[in-house]
Amino acid sequence: LKLGEFELIDRLLKPLARGFPGALELEDDAALVPCAAGQEIVVAKDAIVAGVHYLPDDPADLVAGKLLRVNLSDLAAMGAEPVGYLTAFAVPRDLDQGYLAELVQGLARDQAAFGLHLLGGDTVTTSGPLVLTLTILGRVEAGTALRRSGARPGDLVMVSGTLGDAALGLRVLRGLAATEDETWFVVDRYRTPRPRLALGTRLRGMATAAIDVSDGLLADLGHILDASGVGAEIEAARLPLSTEALGLPRAVEAALSGGDDYELLFTLPPAELERCLVRAAEANVPVTVIGSITAEKGLVVRDASGAPMPTETLGWQHF
Amino acid sequence: LKLGEFELIDRLLKPLARGFPGALELEDDAALVPCAAGQEIVVAKDAIVAGVHYLPDDPADLVAGKLLRVNLSDLAAMGAEPVGYLTAFAVPRDLDQGYLAELVQGLARDQAAFGLHLLGGDTVTTSGPLVLTLTILGRVEAGTALRRSGARPGDLVMVSGTLGDAALGLRVLRGLAATEDETWFVVDRYRTPRPRLALGTRLRGMATAAIDVSDGLLADLGHILDASGVGAEIEAARLPLSTEALGLPRAVEAALSGGDDYELLFTLPPAELERCLVRAAEANVPVTVIGSITAEKGLVVRDASGAPMPTETLGWQHF
Repeated sequence: LKLGEFELIDRLLKPLARGFPGALELEDDAALVPCAAGQEIVVAKDAIVAGVHYLPDDPADLVAGKLLRVNLSDLAAMGAEPVGYLTAFAVPRDLDQGYLAELVQGLARDQAAFGLHLLGGDTVTTSGPLVLTLTILGRVEAGTALRRSGARPGDLVMVSGTLGDAALGLRVLRGLAATEDETWFVVDRYRTPRPRLALGTRLRGMATAAIDVSDGLLADLGHILDASGVGAEIEAARLPLSTEALGLPRAVEAALSGGDDYELLFTLPPAELERCLVRAAEANVPVTVIGSITAEKGLVVRDASGAPMPTETLGWQHF
Repeated sequence: LKLGEFELIDRLLKPLARGFPGALELEDDAALVPCAAGQEIVVAKDAIVAGVHYLPDDPADLVAGKLLRVNLSDLAAMGAEPVGYLTAFAVPRDLDQGYLAELVQGLARDQAAFGLHLLGGDTVTTSGPLVLTLTILGRVEAGTALRRSGARPGDLVMVSGTLGDAALGLRVLRGLAATEDETWFVVDRYRTPRPRLALGTRLRGMATAAIDVSDGLLADLGHILDASGVGAEIEAARLPLSTEALGLPRAVEAALSGGDDYELLFTLPPAELERCLVRAAEANVPVTVIGSITAEKGLVVRDASGAPMPTETLGWQHF
């Protein structure tokens, strides 16, 4: 990239800051985010690398959109509302200008969809693959953020939407045979997560623990169990599977250990179930009870006959 | 890097979050930053790439420390106080573990020196060079942040510390001959910027515009002039040069166009000069008047005889 091309990126990025006065049109050293008494700022950061976290022929606008959506999902898991985001791109010198423009188009579309703005950005060159990092800022009423650590024995384990679709989408992109409808649905689920923001904010004061399913149900439930010092029993037959996933091989395994679904996994006192179902309907997101929290540590998954499944072989590793 | 090595990084990073309750021990999806009524959160983000922004044999702890200090300098330029930071590292698979440990040691030392904590981090692998990105959060009384856009004709142009040292330090590292004392001083200035936080907070309500000198005096003053819609005249003979810089060739050129000094460049109504000198003395930072703001746009640098110098040849480009 030559200097002129950095100016191009600047020109592309600046419109994304319009509408948020504290972004200062990206002209200053930093952005200003208003604080209200009784609120907390919620902040998270993620990085993705070409060839590691996305496929070379994933459309650039969807890659950038997914990075934003994955960070929005972190806010959803805390019950927070989005405020804005910052980007840092390390760009190969020979990267096509059109690719960068598509990345920015993806951010533009998705920031409009979720009502937030760009607050700052940095673009540098690298001799390696494209590295995209994004920092998201949200806000939440002080003391009400959902955490991983509050699950108690007897709580229901619940999940939004359907599980396993994204992992199956990745397998289809890698060659797994599927119908046209199945392909469209599961690939879209892999490429375009739906951060459950409307559900997350409604779970505050109700869910005892929450996380988003990024590493896979078992891994992410494991994080809640570790943080809360409890165990859980899950019934595989209760896992919410899409019609499309059910048409594909090893859908239950994908639902248990596949990553990238970005559904909310949360725990709830049984007395709150009715209220939770009402609030989830308001948010237009289906939720399903898939098990319960136990005092005894460890995670047991039971098959339809009630027999424990061998979960060790179902773990999913990023690397 | 294998999974175990990511766990190592996690182990190294978690202690950096201790002492900031809202970091949630890096165990949750995001961190929580308290808001106080009447304050704004100040946020900035930077990325650096091995081989582009630092030299291969720069010590890792100083590389990480510089990344933190450069971001702190962005807060200083806004008159903000530091709160915390997040990191995202894209790490080559064959990077030495000891190098990562040194990076983290540099962050640990400098976060202690400047009184802030790690709020979150993400570590991913890359097939390319090491990419380090850092997001910094600070806070400032609402409406008082220093900006680039307030310079008015008649204002003094002022700068903290000395200029040109860092650029000379880079030239010494690349082979420029220098005495031992000169080498030690200018290389330290290149590797270890001193973010002028104490000065920045004291300039609020007094300076009309401010920026930190990262790209070089002329380039950064240009940013203030553009944002403020004014011009400036600078006297080269007034530029504050260190004794060490004066011993090296082309020191005035380095002071005008060299980057990386991370001093504060600001504009001040003449009536505020005495108060400014008192506050700078409180902050223990020397400040120097180097010129004044003009209604006529453009930037004129005069030599000791009063003749304009050809500034076009003095510009400094990142790429």
